[in-house]
This record gives sequence, structure tokens and C-alpha cells, in this order.
Amino acid sequence: MRILILGGDGYLGWPTSMQFARKGHEVHAIDDYLRRRAHVEAGTDSLTPIGSSLPARAEAFREVTGLEIGVTEGDLTEWSVVERVFREFEPEAIVHYGEMPSAPYSMIDREHALFTQTNNVVNTLNVLYAMAEITPDAHLVKLGTMGEYGTPNIDIEEGYLEVEHNGRSDTLPFPKLPGSMYHLSKVHDSHNIHFASRIWGLRATDLNQGVVYGIETDETRLDERLLTRFDYDEVFGTALNRFCLQAVIGQPLTPYGKGGQTRGYLNIVDTLQCVELAVLHPAEAGEFRVFNQFTEQFSVVELAELVRHAGLEAGLDVRIEHVDNPRVELEEHYYNAKHTKLLELGLQPHLLSETLIGSMFDVISRYKDRVIADHILPATMWRGVRERSSG
Amino acid sequence: MRILILGGDGYLGWPTSMQFARKGHEVHAIDDYLRRRAHVEAGTDSLTPIGSSLPARAEAFREVTGLEIGVTEGDLTEWSVVERVFREFEPEAIVHYGEMPSAPYSMIDREHALFTQTNNVVNTLNVLYAMAEITPDAHLVKLGTMGEYGTPNIDIEEGYLEVEHNGRSDTLPFPKLPGSMYHLSKVHDSHNIHFASRIWGLRATDLNQGVVYGIETDETRLDERLLTRFDYDEVFGTALNRFCLQAVIGQPLTPYGKGGQTRGYLNIVDTLQCVELAVLHPAEAGEFRVFNQFTEQFSVVELAELVRHAGLEAGLDVRIEHVDNPRVELEEHYYNAKHTKLLELGLQPHLLSETLIGSMFDVISRYKDRVIADHILPATMWRGVRERSSG
Repeated sequence: MRILILGGDGYLGWPTSMQFARKGHEVHAIDDYLRRRAHVEAGTDSLTPIGSSLPARAEAFREVTGLEIGVTEGDLTEWSVVERVFREFEPEAIVHYGEMPSAPYSMIDREHALFTQTNNVVNTLNVLYAMAEITPDAHLVKLGTMGEYGTPNIDIEEGYLEVEHNGRSDTLPFPKLPGSMYHLSKVHDSHNIHFASRIWGLRATDLNQGVVYGIETDETRLDERLLTRFDYDEVFGTALNRFCLQAVIGQPLTPYGKGGQTRGYLNIVDTLQCVELAVLHPAEAGEFRVFNQFTEQFSVVELAELVRHAGLEAGLDVRIEHVDNPRVELEEHYYNAKHTKLLELGLQPHLLSETLIGSMFDVISRYKDRVIADHILPATMWRGVRERSSG
Repeated sequence: MRILILGGDGYLGWPTSMQFARKGHEVHAIDDYLRRRAHVEAGTDSLTPIGSSLPARAEAFREVTGLEIGVTEGDLTEWSVVERVFREFEPEAIVHYGEMPSAPYSMIDREHALFTQTNNVVNTLNVLYAMAEITPDAHLVKLGTMGEYGTPNIDIEEGYLEVEHNGRSDTLPFPKLPGSMYHLSKVHDSHNIHFASRIWGLRATDLNQGVVYGIETDETRLDERLLTRFDYDEVFGTALNRFCLQAVIGQPLTPYGKGGQTRGYLNIVDTLQCVELAVLHPAEAGEFRVFNQFTEQFSVVELAELVRHAGLEAGLDVRIEHVDNPRVELEEHYYNAKHTKLLELGLQPHLLSETLIGSMFDVISRYKDRVIADHILPATMWRGVRERSSG
């Protein structure tokens, strides 16, 4: 199958590109290094050393495997770039990771909020128009986020809610309560994609993904030059990955606030598995399908305890130190999100274990010297704009 | 009260500015003539002659009434403009009409869709940041649209839905099924404003408005130079206004498709009344309040029949001629939208009558010579991009 990977230089985009290539698909990856530039802006970096550019990584992949990954260095907000890639490659599936992915980044200030929302919305609209005009039968597999739902006091369904109201009923988009300017951009995307599927008959799958953890996949293990990036800083790092790194470098694990925030989590190898399942089982023409993509729910303190325990086993002295919550969110709440649709398609979950955490410790230790320790604690405050106000 | 009117040159923004000034408020209006420029682009125009610029209209208003309306010619997507107006005027209420308001405009092509979404989302984000930073206690009265809801098979509530699900319950944002790139932009706005109210404690009221009809308000009647604009073209015109004009110029009334599309409608004088009620009864700090702003529901064929009948009374020979529906929408559907909250605040509806339609005929007849007749029928097709595709 011809598979176009948007955001092919990223944490998930690069291993996804390699996996599809190794499974015999024709893969083209596009990226404009937005995340690399944001790291330079902030003075942070990936823990793992990654190739200097996407073409360099594709060249290393060719040397190791003999397989090709086509590459475009370009910005999806530019229509000429999107149009050229669609006309030349004619994708049958489009895996869309190509967005600014960070909630804290979007909350730094007004400029970062506007950049996040316009970048993500324009990227996705360009992709939708390219599909409608050039490849109307292709299938869009869009990475959304579980964060679109927020933490309602009812069970979270997969994209839609069957509503009974005043004696009538309908199946409607599940109500959204996103918690950052970034999460809002994903909600905007979901509405835009749903509309495009209704009016143009496009095929689309929205993967509302939980928090991904892990460093290695089958392909990254083949050669050090094939490593994917690993972020642990306050802007791009996520809970479990950051805790593992803090454990290794002897920093206390830092749950935000009470740490009762419960979310869905999944191993990076399951992300790749879910995306493959979605691609191999495309949505119908006109269908906007939503899958909740995670395998287990944990609260932040549960994760911290898990890492602390695995640390003890590994001879690490791990402390937990709650810090003031930079976000505006409930720290104790009901959370029960459904996630059966990918299981029905055949997902075999790799559940979180101390063994996995131990192997993450090993990889992190290998690159310990590269850690930039002073950008791990939260600096971006959700109420910041308001607190600096004159009122 | 100091009231800032965003989009103060528009169909509703201009009469709103005049009304608040006449009621003793301090009014500042801002506009960048987006609609005027779109008319020039399309070769269309307002039926009514309006002043050459917002300052010229404010000057005429001062001559007629002795009252001031402050004016800024500027673009709300430019932060420097928004920041300056907020710092200098320090509004207590912001009435936000300042967006690209047309569904067909947003569906012309990719460029118009992207413009509509980025313009509207960025405008509103700038306003939210200005409020958080400069006037955190001010009240945003934002014009939304009933079109955000689409036509679900259940009663439409005012912004929120009480959900019972698997034995638990919550009050959540009412699910949205917007029907154009423009309507989507309003849904994005609603989510962004709701978020800003949650994290920054801003006061906000979203007025999900129905289709507005009418030409005259108490202030526009004072002097011909105080007229508001009246659009009847396929891009900016709306059903009843267009039907009245078609009746006067002897063109058949043109319902789209079967004409069973049912929507909420209201008289322009009730728009002004609703906005005033919202401003005088502000939302609480941190509250995102949603009112459905219309007074009556009609199907398109019901409206056409009303106009035909009023036309007969007025000696006009009115025919009805259904045209192919350019939109993708249900032409027969359940529709029951609640609209009690503004009534509870004191709204006294001016219901649609043949008398009102007759008086619209009179005003339209006065400016009959200005009609541009060849841009009334629909040209923008919702499926257009898809139908031109190579697939």
C-alpha cells in the first residue's frame, strides 16, 4: 500500500515509517522539523541522538535494511507542498502525526497558542482538500488525543454518544472538554474531518490516543542510527517517560498537584500496532470513525509508584515529590474511557510492567550524559496570562 | 457602560453601535471592512447605500443625534490593534460580531475555507487574550450561530446537554454538527471561549443566533445616512431577506431543494434587544453562558409561502421555484430548538408578520435600482471540490 506519513521525523512518525517500510509498504514521510526547532528555541533536546535530518535517517535505514523511505522536507501549511506530495505519491493511506503536539507549548503565551491552533487546523484542512481533490478514495488515519474529552463525570465512549433526550434519540459526537490550546486544536480538527467525511465522502479514522511511553520498537533496535527521539522536558515530555528519566538521573519524580489525574496509556509498540490495524482496515467512504487508542488507565501517582518500585529493584534511590500543578485540571475525578474497537480489530496489548520500565532505565542510562536537567520541572502556567494581567 | 463593538460596520454591528450610543453608553466600534472587500471581490453590494466608511457613518450619526461613536479601522487578527483598543478603551462589555459571517463564502474553495477559519479563530483568540491580560472582569458577548448544532434528531438545548449515561450523569457541551467551514469556525470559537472562561475566569455569553431578517431599527430610521447594509446575494444574503428582494424585483423565490430545512429566525430589532439584554445581565466570572437567540422556527417553504402571500397583498406577482440544493444538508428533518433564556431575561419578541414583510417590500422598492440581479442564485456548491476531483 502507498502510505504517506505526515510528521515522519517525530517520536511516533519515524518508527511508524520504518515499520510500514519493513512490512513491504511503499512509504513516504514528510516533516518540517517543527519539533526540532521548538527544542532549539527552548534550549532542550531529545535524550536519544537522532540523525541530523529526515533524509539522513532514511539513508541510514536504507543502509541497514536495504529498504527505501521516500522523504519530503516541507511544511503542511503550504498548499504547494501538500499538493505536490499528493499528486506525486498518490497515497492510499495518510497517517497524520504532522502537528504541534504539546499542551504546555500551546500555553506558553498568546503567540504559541495562535501558532498551535493555526498550524494544526491549516495542516489538516490542507490534507482534507488534497484528499478531496486528488485522492478521494484514500483513508486518513489522524492522530487525535484522549485529551479532547477532558474528564467528564460519565463513561467516555469512542467518539460518539447515544443520546436519549425528551423521548427522542440520536447518535451524536461525544461532547468535548479539552484542557489546553493544543487539545482544542485537536477538537477543531475532529470537527473539520467529520465534516469533510460528511460532505465529500472521505474515509477517516480519528485515533484518540492516550499517553505513549517507551523508547524502542523492532526497527529502532536494529541500529543506533535508527533510534527515535525521546523527550523528557516540561514541554514535550510526558508523565511516564519523564518519571523514568528522573529516576535514572536521581531527580525526584514530580506528579503535578495531588496526582490523581487518571489517563489512558499505551506502549509505543502498541501505537504502531494500532496505526497499522487502522490502515489495514480502512473506514468506509463517508465514514468518520473514532477509536480510543490506549491499553490501560493509570493515575499519575500510580505511575510514580510503579516507577519508584521498579527503581528500587534496579538499585535506584527514587523519591516522589509533588509539585504545584501548572495546569487547570481536576486532580481527583471519575475516569472510565472505553477502548474496545482496536481490540476488536486484533490489537494485542503490551501492558506496562516493571520489566518494561527496567529496560527503559537501561536505554536512558546509556544516554544519561545527554540529559539537560534544568528544563524538566514545569514552568508554563495555565493561568499565567491571567495572573500577569493588570486587572 | 463602555461597550466595544467588534465588526461595528456590519449589518448588525452598526445598528447595535447606534442603539447603545442612543441609550447612553460609551461605544467604540472597530471594523476592517472584510465584508465590503468580499463584496468588491464578488462584484456584489449592499442593497442599501451605506456610508463610505465607518468614520463617515459615525460622523453622520453625530450630526443627526449629537452622540459620539468612537471608531477604529483595524483588523482583529493583528494583536497590536486589539491590544491598543483594549488598553485605550478598557471595555466593560465586548460585543463580538467581528468575523467572516458567510457559509457559502467559506465553501467557495480551499483558500476561502482557510481564510474563514483562521480569521475567525485568530480574531477570537486575540480578544480572549486581551480580556485575560487587560480587562479580566469584562464580559464577552459573542455572536455564535444556531448552525453550530446542525439538525440532530433530538431537541436542541441552549449550549449544554444533561447526559445520563450508564448510571452516571453530567452536564456537557451540546454536541455540534456544523454544516460549513464557516459554521465550523464558530464551533471552534465556542470551544476556545469555553476554555478561556474555565482557566482564566472570564465572563462570556455565546449567542447562538438564528437567521436574522429585516432592514430597519429605531436608529436607521432617523436618517438615510444611518441605514444599515442589506445583503441579498448568494454569499451574504439569507433566506427571508433574499425572498423579499426576489419578490420585489420579480424573480422567483428559490428554496434550496425540498425547502423543508427548518431554522430559527428573528427580526433585526430583536437581535439588538437580545444583545442589550445579554450586556445588561452579564455572565458570572468563569461562566460560559449560551443562549439560543431566535424567536420563531420556520421551514424555508413556509417562509416562501409567507412572502408569496404578502406579495399578493402588495400586488406583486410572486412565484416559487425550487432550485438544486448547493449545500449538503437534510431537507426534511426534526427540529425543535429551545430558546427560553433570553425570554426569561425579558425579551419581547417582534414576530414575523405580513405587515413586516410589506414594510420590507417598501424599503427594498426604494433601492430597487441598485439591485445586482445576477448574483442571487446559488453558485457555490458544497460538494464542488470533490466533484472537480480527479478521483
